[in-house]
Amino acid sequence: MNGAESLVRTLVAGGVDVCFANPGTSEMHFVAALDRVDGMRCVLGLHETVVTGAADGYARMAEKPASTLLHLGPGLANGLSNMHNAGRAGSPMVNIVGDHTTFHRNYDAPLTSDIEGAARPFSHWVRTSPDARMVAADGAAAIAAARTPPGRIATLILPADTAWNEADGIAPVPAIPARKMVDHAIVKGIARLLRRNEPTLLLLGGSAVRQTGLEWAGRIAAATGIKIMGQTSNPRMERGAGRVAVERVPFPVDLALDVLKGFQHVVLAGAKAPIGFFAYPGKPSILTPPDCTIHTLARVDEDIIHALEVLADELGARAQKFETARAERPARPTGPITLDSLARAIGALLPEGAIVIDEAITTGRGFFPFTRGAPPHDWLQNMGGSIGLGQPLATGAAVACPSRKVVALQADGSAMYSLQALWTQAREGLDVTTLLFDNRTYAILRHELTNVGASNPGRKALDMLDIGRPDLDWVSLARGMGVPGEKVTTIDEFLDGFARGLAAPGPYLVSVTL
Amino acid sequence: MNGAESLVRTLVAGGVDVCFANPGTSEMHFVAALDRVDGMRCVLGLHETVVTGAADGYARMAEKPASTLLHLGPGLANGLSNMHNAGRAGSPMVNIVGDHTTFHRNYDAPLTSDIEGAARPFSHWVRTSPDARMVAADGAAAIAAARTPPGRIATLILPADTAWNEADGIAPVPAIPARKMVDHAIVKGIARLLRRNEPTLLLLGGSAVRQTGLEWAGRIAAATGIKIMGQTSNPRMERGAGRVAVERVPFPVDLALDVLKGFQHVVLAGAKAPIGFFAYPGKPSILTPPDCTIHTLARVDEDIIHALEVLADELGARAQKFETARAERPARPTGPITLDSLARAIGALLPEGAIVIDEAITTGRGFFPFTRGAPPHDWLQNMGGSIGLGQPLATGAAVACPSRKVVALQADGSAMYSLQALWTQAREGLDVTTLLFDNRTYAILRHELTNVGASNPGRKALDMLDIGRPDLDWVSLARGMGVPGEKVTTIDEFLDGFARGLAAPGPYLVSVTL
Repeated sequence: MNGAESLVRTLVAGGVDVCFANPGTSEMHFVAALDRVDGMRCVLGLHETVVTGAADGYARMAEKPASTLLHLGPGLANGLSNMHNAGRAGSPMVNIVGDHTTFHRNYDAPLTSDIEGAARPFSHWVRTSPDARMVAADGAAAIAAARTPPGRIATLILPADTAWNEADGIAPVPAIPARKMVDHAIVKGIARLLRRNEPTLLLLGGSAVRQTGLEWAGRIAAATGIKIMGQTSNPRMERGAGRVAVERVPFPVDLALDVLKGFQHVVLAGAKAPIGFFAYPGKPSILTPPDCTIHTLARVDEDIIHALEVLADELGARAQKFETARAERPARPTGPITLDSLARAIGALLPEGAIVIDEAITTGRGFFPFTRGAPPHDWLQNMGGSIGLGQPLATGAAVACPSRKVVALQADGSAMYSLQALWTQAREGLDVTTLLFDNRTYAILRHELTNVGASNPGRKALDMLDIGRPDLDWVSLARGMGVPGEKVTTIDEFLDGFARGLAAPGPYLVSVTL
Repeated sequence: MNGAESLVRTLVAGGVDVCFANPGTSEMHFVAALDRVDGMRCVLGLHETVVTGAADGYARMAEKPASTLLHLGPGLANGLSNMHNAGRAGSPMVNIVGDHTTFHRNYDAPLTSDIEGAARPFSHWVRTSPDARMVAADGAAAIAAARTPPGRIATLILPADTAWNEADGIAPVPAIPARKMVDHAIVKGIARLLRRNEPTLLLLGGSAVRQTGLEWAGRIAAATGIKIMGQTSNPRMERGAGRVAVERVPFPVDLALDVLKGFQHVVLAGAKAPIGFFAYPGKPSILTPPDCTIHTLARVDEDIIHALEVLADELGARAQKFETARAERPARPTGPITLDSLARAIGALLPEGAIVIDEAITTGRGFFPFTRGAPPHDWLQNMGGSIGLGQPLATGAAVACPSRKVVALQADGSAMYSLQALWTQAREGLDVTTLLFDNRTYAILRHELTNVGASNPGRKALDMLDIGRPDLDWVSLARGMGVPGEKVTTIDEFLDGFARGLAAPGPYLVSVTL
């Protein structure tokens, strides 16, 4: 077998059985090998940002890496922003990037670039395979690198001749490091702290906002009276009726400062210390009060769940009763579309087992509370702040979980960065209902213009924040990529449209005029 | 004034008066400064690949750099592939990339990344401004770097506080290096070579394929009997009736080998030695015959025109008569759409002064000969091979030349990487007629699969090359972004549709079903 086939077989044997791809000439042998190897599902994206964003969504739901297939430096470059987001989410990913043959690189052909240099800022592990006989072992090493906790971005560069030359066969995946256990002395110290009855916040991130982690946190909170919250953004939060409900630290700095004021201690369980998304003139970067002490129970790459369990034991809280969200939905709203009525309508209809993709930005800030008592669902957010993740993330999550409904809460400005994902949803018949919030503006930047102290903007500045003129017609855009949809202008229409999307077995888009 | 305003004023004073932008929070002060400064035209793109690709198109036609405005590392990353193409085209470009404030970077906020590291593989010059008072001087240095021959990619990173803190004022642009003169001894050596009457090709690139360069080359060819050709791809070729017509070295390796066989000498005037775009098993990377000698008259950053002029003088050819293309158009074809009838139809209608953007890939290989005698026009190609440049390039060229018609010859697969450019064309009312060749496949990759020796592909491999299922509806996609259009299925409909596009004052898309 050739190098490409040895790699595909190694990936499949190593549990990497989905490949999101946008290949070119240098990847043709990899593509050809896909035919010869059973067990690898290939999903084409028409832009690389779809490819890497989908791999992120897949990894969050499948809890294992997908592979991607990218074409030389520029193809990789097109996928970097969603690799950034995935890296921040702790999503494992195995990127395969084709390159010129080793003997052709010297000629500086048009597509030649420094691929390793381009990969490094957004990868945790980068390697160029030197030889067809090394490709399988390098692929196996990439899987191990990607699966290193909490989940990492591994980028393997494959010169074309390493794909087409003769290779030996499958390589086994090296041992994958386990999550590190938290030192018992640290847990004991946190337990002592929590018994002091000082105003304390247990801030949850990573796996701590999945059901088991939340339940341990719920027992700890009930036993000690401390407050528990989630980070502003989380890769995957399990929530809804019967689960421990936590609020998140708000995104706007002033609201975050307000929520965090008064805490003398913040204990981090898989979370990072709260800091501002951006800095603003005259506002602090650190969102906790000046006299607040930050304590780390478990870092995101450590065994957070075990640390919470041990902490609960230390506090004698193993059998502690804890509060969970009651099953309750908002009443179906009527009348005009407002941010409030939208939030209620989503809460009223969100189906059991939904995977919610939240890139609704300013429109979606109020959606969270109204889905608290909806049937159990997952809530996925953008961890890296590079907008344009939503639709690719929905695509990958739907590939990972074909029996669940994906509901994408999608702002229009963000959606335009990666609208090509709709085509992949159509081709693969993915069960994604996109609620497209059409406010015709980068609304967040209007706030930000004020926040940074640039007030009284004129026409030229406002034009840079305004994505109307011409207005985007999202029903046309979706139809152009094979996704049916409709435009709604009242909340009754929205409820009907959302219901039609939920009833449809494949992708559907509801364009919500705000 | 603050740092942002000092930069905008420096750019305008330095002749950089167009900014293609996709800003975020960290760029808000730059955006606000645009209101306070006259003379900077701001053009919004809804994805950064539109921004950098438009800056490339603008630079090729305006012969000076535009600025871009990009949001931190991921925003830059989204623009890298078209920065790659621009760098390969020798297009000057001044990228302004916002970053977190210097004091906020330490907190590793979600959008934090190694921006310099990301910029470097695709920039010739990278600098992070340390201080508001340095921003103007750094911007002036960026202009000088961008204008260094043949035209370079300069990337200036602007931490947000360098934009909002107090600065001094405008900085003058440092001296820009002139194109180096070619040593007279080299020209004399080439002249001696050309007098030897051995089979010789004068291969033209860079400014040598503009009108003046072509005329000197035409005189030299007429005086010596050598052959002249253009490179496979050229940033901007001036051609049509009354101009010296040159063929280009074909893209497919076998055709290129055939065209170049028999030459004992290739003399490069702004061109690179012919090498394969990719390497293929069993085929050479170097496309000239093994016994052919490569001679360099002038590199692309040297004064190519002057070198050609001196060479003509050495050969006594200053007053030499030379051949130019006769004004002649193909007859209007009728019947079905074929690659041949399309080529004839384009040749029949191409208007005087058209700026032709050629990203037609496999569909467009035969278009060149049939436009040889069309009224004078410019022909712009993708120099870096990263597809998805066409529509952004058309956008920027139209901004640079509002009184000329831009005709974008656009393959569908490539178009999907940067379709957002259509929205910018609609917003700015740009005079671009897009001829969208809808063959529902990455057709080039079907050839490439065979070329690399991966024959008999199965369904799974072919699916990765097929962009139908579902078919893209380009009229819907264009309409969704405010661009009118139509779908044509016969060559008569194509001629009518193309004519309607040419008659329209703004953007228009003709979707050509192949």
